[in-house]
Amino acid sequence: MSAIDLTLIGIGTGNPEHLTLQAIRAMNAQDMILIPRKGPGKADLAELRRAICDEVLTGKGTRIVEFDLPVRDERTADYRQRVDDWHDEIAGAWKAAMAEYPEASRIALLVWGDPSLYDSTLRIAARLRPAPRVAVIPGITSLQALTATHAIPINEIGAPFLVTTGRRLRNEGWPVGVDTLAVMLDGDCAFTALDPAGLHIWWGAYVGMAEEITCAGPLADVSERIVRMRAEARERHGWIMDIYILRRH
Amino acid sequence: MSAIDLTLIGIGTGNPEHLTLQAIRAMNAQDMILIPRKGPGKADLAELRRAICDEVLTGKGTRIVEFDLPVRDERTADYRQRVDDWHDEIAGAWKAAMAEYPEASRIALLVWGDPSLYDSTLRIAARLRPAPRVAVIPGITSLQALTATHAIPINEIGAPFLVTTGRRLRNEGWPVGVDTLAVMLDGDCAFTALDPAGLHIWWGAYVGMAEEITCAGPLADVSERIVRMRAEARERHGWIMDIYILRRH
Repeated sequence: MSAIDLTLIGIGTGNPEHLTLQAIRAMNAQDMILIPRKGPGKADLAELRRAICDEVLTGKGTRIVEFDLPVRDERTADYRQRVDDWHDEIAGAWKAAMAEYPEASRIALLVWGDPSLYDSTLRIAARLRPAPRVAVIPGITSLQALTATHAIPINEIGAPFLVTTGRRLRNEGWPVGVDTLAVMLDGDCAFTALDPAGLHIWWGAYVGMAEEITCAGPLADVSERIVRMRAEARERHGWIMDIYILRRH
Repeated sequence: MSAIDLTLIGIGTGNPEHLTLQAIRAMNAQDMILIPRKGPGKADLAELRRAICDEVLTGKGTRIVEFDLPVRDERTADYRQRVDDWHDEIAGAWKAAMAEYPEASRIALLVWGDPSLYDSTLRIAARLRPAPRVAVIPGITSLQALTATHAIPINEIGAPFLVTTGRRLRNEGWPVGVDTLAVMLDGDCAFTALDPAGLHIWWGAYVGMAEEITCAGPLADVSERIVRMRAEARERHGWIMDIYILRRH
């Protein structure tokens, strides 16, 4: 069995127009595109991936194969172990899906955002044996969709910024030596645990999608409003993905 | 005079296939696209911007207007003042270029990478009077082109990363509390000033372009090679843009 070519294609954040020409060309060059399913009511975005395939695949040479994404075992106490086990299971699900068309040698996954940023696809790909040749096509991230909708630069002139997670911000507080934070993967409004004095926030959920909602202002003024907007949107859609930038003055 | 609609369009890093469908549509919706010229032998990439316009503009409704980019006055001692003065002058050059077709109300600039990341276009736009309505179209950044070519994630699982400048890294050393750095705007190989023990580097120049060169490995092993590759490439092309990620183990 010769090594497959596995291409991880960044597709942006739900706006089909985030697709790059490179992504479209790469999709059309595949024998198979794998699409994960999480089950009904979940933010699996399988429907969006299918719609993107329908829209941009021009030939009949690319097979779309869906697979059920394994569920993370929340009984495993250790966070890293839980993630590692889950990634092993996902790699197994990929293998099973790939086996449906063993003649396929060019196989792609469509990655939400960009495969480099808080995404596990590269780590799962590293588990495959024989090891595939892996290529990455960059895509627009939610962080870029956030700065675009607010029309702001992420950094101040010549200044650094830190990209971190809600969990880190809540557990460790404001990090040393930096005045701008981009916060991802925050399921719990970690900004409410900060002293809001002197902080400005630019927040967005479903950024880039038709459902996009945003809010910005001094954290002291808008914190409660964001918590409320977030809860209402999550209730309405059944899921939420949000992101924000905090800046200290 | 009614306010103009000013659209800042991220165009990626020199690979015309980095263009998104959104960027292509936005370009075709403009009355005017402004292209800066820095003069011969410089990294102004005006030629690339012209080629992109030729490639994607499908109608005849969009005028391309070139303008000479003012030169930064290096005699001004203070860095922030020097940058502020320069941005004022660029805003003036935009105004002069826009005045060539005063009937144009939808005007765009094509921004290298993404308008949010170490780019001045939003700050220059804020100087225009009357204030334009500003919209931003995100584009693939050099940081994404770097991680794509090396096929690496930028962050470790659940861990933060800092995006900073070569100047900061050289002046302040490795920042507190973070194990991954992305370093931009480094004209002087600031990584050579670090103790390389335990550090890994992923480096690239002209990432995404036909001229792309890369190098990766333990910093102790590849530091000198990168310095040499960088100097040779700069000599050969007359300019260089490079970027790198450092990770501490």
